[in-house]
Amino acid sequence: MTERRRRRLPRDVREQEIIDAAVGVFSKRGYRAAVVDEIADLAGISKPMVYLYLGSKEGLFIACVRRESQRLAAAFREAAQAGDSPEQRLWAGLGAFFAFVAEHRDSWTVLHRQAPEQSETIAGELATARRSVMAEVNGLVRDGISAGGEADRLGEQEADFVAHALVGAADALTDWMDRHPGEPPERVTVRLMNVMWVGMRNVLDGEVWVPPEHGT
Amino acid sequence: MTERRRRRLPRDVREQEIIDAAVGVFSKRGYRAAVVDEIADLAGISKPMVYLYLGSKEGLFIACVRRESQRLAAAFREAAQAGDSPEQRLWAGLGAFFAFVAEHRDSWTVLHRQAPEQSETIAGELATARRSVMAEVNGLVRDGISAGGEADRLGEQEADFVAHALVGAADALTDWMDRHPGEPPERVTVRLMNVMWVGMRNVLDGEVWVPPEHGT
Repeated sequence: MTERRRRRLPRDVREQEIIDAAVGVFSKRGYRAAVVDEIADLAGISKPMVYLYLGSKEGLFIACVRRESQRLAAAFREAAQAGDSPEQRLWAGLGAFFAFVAEHRDSWTVLHRQAPEQSETIAGELATARRSVMAEVNGLVRDGISAGGEADRLGEQEADFVAHALVGAADALTDWMDRHPGEPPERVTVRLMNVMWVGMRNVLDGEVWVPPEHGT
Repeated sequence: MTERRRRRLPRDVREQEIIDAAVGVFSKRGYRAAVVDEIADLAGISKPMVYLYLGSKEGLFIACVRRESQRLAAAFREAAQAGDSPEQRLWAGLGAFFAFVAEHRDSWTVLHRQAPEQSETIAGELATARRSVMAEVNGLVRDGISAGGEADRLGEQEADFVAHALVGAADALTDWMDRHPGEPPERVTVRLMNVMWVGMRNVLDGEVWVPPEHGT
């Protein structure tokens, strides 16, 4: 540790190292129980230097949420862009999401399990992060709509509805993954496509599910 | 208020009144900012009496989570039981869920938006509440499986996967409802059936979505 302390690094490299350490500590301890000393220690830097770089424990946490949500949204967007059809884009995007969760468990814990009630600033930051992911998925769903030629029929509201259903399902399935650690993210993705794709395609095509008659 | 204070009520009635008041205050203020004085005042009872009945602010919160999650699970279960087919049961259950959220906004806020990090006891209670809702949905999905004669083919793991996707989607859609307050719960239910049912039926029937070939 003494040796690491002596290294001189550019500010942005140092900052990323501090955020790396903070993601690990917040994920392990939770926001409230996390202490800046442990983060400083892990990053091989003094506590006053951590404060100098990122302001406060709250500032540290916000930096973690911001960086990790941007990474997640970027992974989703890049994977989705590579697909040829709406179906492939969704499949690739969901695959990237589950792979991110499996590979960066600490990042996901910070985004998914932290308490928005700790402060309004943090609640606002988590809401912004969620909105940015929702916007990516919404864009993908609207792409699907355009590709299907149904742009006039289904509006922003429908796309947003499907995006919420999809993000909520994917979110909750990360808990399922926790309980089935042997299940590779690729299989989780195929399973979710099984449940969601056919129904989504119907919505995108403007088909409507009709409540069944009683007794049939 | 003075008159209410003088009333003599059986213990369980008084307790329910305190919980009613607590749900309102926790929903409005959040767990951390909520103060027992306000709850006592709303319930028309002294603060020491509140502590006598429910122990502590944490005890109050746990009583709220327990009662409201039981109510929600019961509403879901009763509605679902009335359906004739898996499709009708799911439709009725989801309808009861969205109606509960629309009618008991405070209860839902306590269950959905509170910070599990406040204490391990609270985290445990919220996890138990979620598991009990998940178990209801899982039961419904497994009923669907049995009704389709595919009991041997799909196991606990598949039913649990579908239950997670469904609960997560419904959860996230309550945020969508917040932003579309004019949308009646019945329409939200039909929209979600549109997205989920066809896909779910395929899973229950043992059909499998296959990743598309690249370039098709």
